Amino acid sequence: MSLNLFRSTIRAARTSASSGSRFMTPAYITLSSNGRCMSTGAAKLADINPSRLEVVRTSQPGVPPPSSSLKFGHTFTDHMLTVPWDVVSGWGVPKIEPYGPLQLEPSCTVLHYAQTIFEGMKAYRHDDGRVTLFRPDMNMKRMNTSAARIALPTFDGEAMLELIKQLIRIDKDWIPREPGHSLYVRPTLIGTQKAIGVGPPSEALMFVILSPVGPYYPKGFKPVSLYGTTEFVRAAPGGTGAFKLGVNYAPGILPQKQAAEQGYAQNLWLHGPEHYLTEVGTMNMFVVFGKGDGSYELVTPPLDGMILPGVTRDSVLSLARRHASKSYTVKDLPEQITVSERPVTMAEVRDASKNGTLIEMFGAGTAAVISPVDRIGYRGEDVHVPTGKDGMGPLSRPIWRELVGRQTGEIKSDWSVEI
Amino acid sequence: MSLNLFRSTIRAARTSASSGSRFMTPAYITLSSNGRCMSTGAAKLADINPSRLEVVRTSQPGVPPPSSSLKFGHTFTDHMLTVPWDVVSGWGVPKIEPYGPLQLEPSCTVLHYAQTIFEGMKAYRHDDGRVTLFRPDMNMKRMNTSAARIALPTFDGEAMLELIKQLIRIDKDWIPREPGHSLYVRPTLIGTQKAIGVGPPSEALMFVILSPVGPYYPKGFKPVSLYGTTEFVRAAPGGTGAFKLGVNYAPGILPQKQAAEQGYAQNLWLHGPEHYLTEVGTMNMFVVFGKGDGSYELVTPPLDGMILPGVTRDSVLSLARRHASKSYTVKDLPEQITVSERPVTMAEVRDASKNGTLIEMFGAGTAAVISPVDRIGYRGEDVHVPTGKDGMGPLSRPIWRELVGRQTGEIKSDWSVEI
Repeated sequence: MSLNLFRSTIRAARTSASSGSRFMTPAYITLSSNGRCMSTGAAKLADINPSRLEVVRTSQPGVPPPSSSLKFGHTFTDHMLTVPWDVVSGWGVPKIEPYGPLQLEPSCTVLHYAQTIFEGMKAYRHDDGRVTLFRPDMNMKRMNTSAARIALPTFDGEAMLELIKQLIRIDKDWIPREPGHSLYVRPTLIGTQKAIGVGPPSEALMFVILSPVGPYYPKGFKPVSLYGTTEFVRAAPGGTGAFKLGVNYAPGILPQKQAAEQGYAQNLWLHGPEHYLTEVGTMNMFVVFGKGDGSYELVTPPLDGMILPGVTRDSVLSLARRHASKSYTVKDLPEQITVSERPVTMAEVRDASKNGTLIEMFGAGTAAVISPVDRIGYRGEDVHVPTGKDGMGPLSRPIWRELVGRQTGEIKSDWSVEI
Repeated sequence: MSLNLFRSTIRAARTSASSGSRFMTPAYITLSSNGRCMSTGAAKLADINPSRLEVVRTSQPGVPPPSSSLKFGHTFTDHMLTVPWDVVSGWGVPKIEPYGPLQLEPSCTVLHYAQTIFEGMKAYRHDDGRVTLFRPDMNMKRMNTSAARIALPTFDGEAMLELIKQLIRIDKDWIPREPGHSLYVRPTLIGTQKAIGVGPPSEALMFVILSPVGPYYPKGFKPVSLYGTTEFVRAAPGGTGAFKLGVNYAPGILPQKQAAEQGYAQNLWLHGPEHYLTEVGTMNMFVVFGKGDGSYELVTPPLDGMILPGVTRDSVLSLARRHASKSYTVKDLPEQITVSERPVTMAEVRDASKNGTLIEMFGAGTAAVISPVDRIGYRGEDVHVPTGKDGMGPLSRPIWRELVGRQTGEIKSDWSVEI
């Protein structure tokens, strides 16, 4: 894509963002009020229906391992949720059943053509026994736009969320009680057509599995080093970077290995000859500049079609904007901040590092929440990024506290949805 | 990527092509003589070993359906081949067993992060009873470069080919006898780690399934119409277009649907502001220009990192080059041809269509072999592409006959490998 086209895409994204839509939904995807995509011309098939749920409880319940031994995504709870779909009858009977292997034909299209999308969200157990999810409506909406992008079936997001809540209720005892721990919820939708033609699948399967997880930083924040990556791209204009598709993940593993071999923890994906910052590893990216007069600019790249519309990204922006407009106060957050969704180049970051106006940088995502950065390998030298004494900076620290407060229930908010 | 970077990538690709390498293997992937990728620093693990093969024959052999009822990729033979791999012991015991479902954990990484690569090749049954594959060494080499690109395990390509031959021998009676029919062979390699971390998988599974297929054009050639696609990309510089990964397929389905809704059969993927031709649907692309003096230029885009190094593409180029240099004669192919791997833009194609120097265009791939094109929807109008009276043009017709002759054994060649 030419620079002009790229710029006009960014302008379009800005317009969309300023008009208040949380996700930049592409013009070819229309969402209804319940988050379901409206497909034109499709026959009216059965949607996901929680009242049809069948539950088969395990006869051999497992024992949750000690929280201290949890490794991300390695432990799963007693049950899983499945909802089949086919092109003739639509969504079928939802089932909660004992966690166990799926039987998939070797011709199954997900195994050949990567017809898979997923979501990641967390359930928290509060001191008073309540269990909550954090902004799960955002995940259901995004999952629908992801499905539409690769011609997988869309669905009623509210109905699906009801089923997910029921699964979590049944496996509630698996949610760790320790601070910083949670239950990671992984809804996944795969194409299961039993024929290897490339096209919209005739069959699909939604499944949800649950994994108890510990804190991302068990021993306090540890800033990560980034390798400014130009040899590989995570996404490109006209590609799939704005959707949570499996295809965005496998290709990033080799670049990550190569960054690690050079002594960096993650890839900082740079785009185009200008080396625009896009994402870091599998997280959204924020940069804080100081303006010299004690005020700050909090910058993140715009939703230009290459950036995943992250729930944590949206939460950071929303909190900072409300604080800046004085309609809400995030404790300890500096008063004078400007919030920008705008392109930012490595040259700007490097220059700011040199002249002392680079305040901090951090990644934002469901797994880590906030992940501070301390240096960027770029063109053979390291760009230094300041970090506070606990690893966090003047904006990320109060924003992180507010986010975690809302997740754990210490701070009341409508982002926390009770199960 | 800037235009300059894009051009220098193309220059690098040309250099590589002219130095005789069949595939442009990126600098970060090193292939040994048996096609296996050399990974640095890895412990020496067991490779694929055909002498460990275990065979369990089905007790309920199926009956091959009538050849006339075959639909691509819908029918599978009695047996399949599996070879497991894990990071501790390497490649395990190969098994030929009855065709049936795979048991995959719902946490299996292929289902979340698209850790899948595949190949497509065809086995032909000849009048004298022999069965042959067409250039299968190319597929094994490409599968290794694909594996390396997404951190799946590499393997000894010759050993793997031995196992594939044994599977085909066992299911030989499933190969249709009718002209134009064949047995489609689908090797697939998936990540099967039972934990949802994003990284090189700790476990993987190679499997091979076989599907009897009929001719792509049962009733004679039918030229396809193309939609010049700029809204979506199939590949980008720094991406995965040059590798046969599952991730290149799912994202193309929505664009194909949208092209179909506008009355076009396939996407012609155009790159950059210059609208360079890259691929058509899931095939490589050839254009023939007339030079006005009775000579022709056969053009295909270079292996610039965005183009799949197709086996049919390589075969077309190789035949045309040998014919042009008079070291071999392709029957009925015009004598005066120049063969070019060079960028070609839509402007060049449109101008040639208008001034009568566009001779023909065709896709090339394993499924269709040669697929002629009759028009391209571009910027709101149709660019007319000439086709001969049987749908094929003056270069594609003799090249297609030569390719099919070599596949069916009518023309002897070392591209045909006996099983």
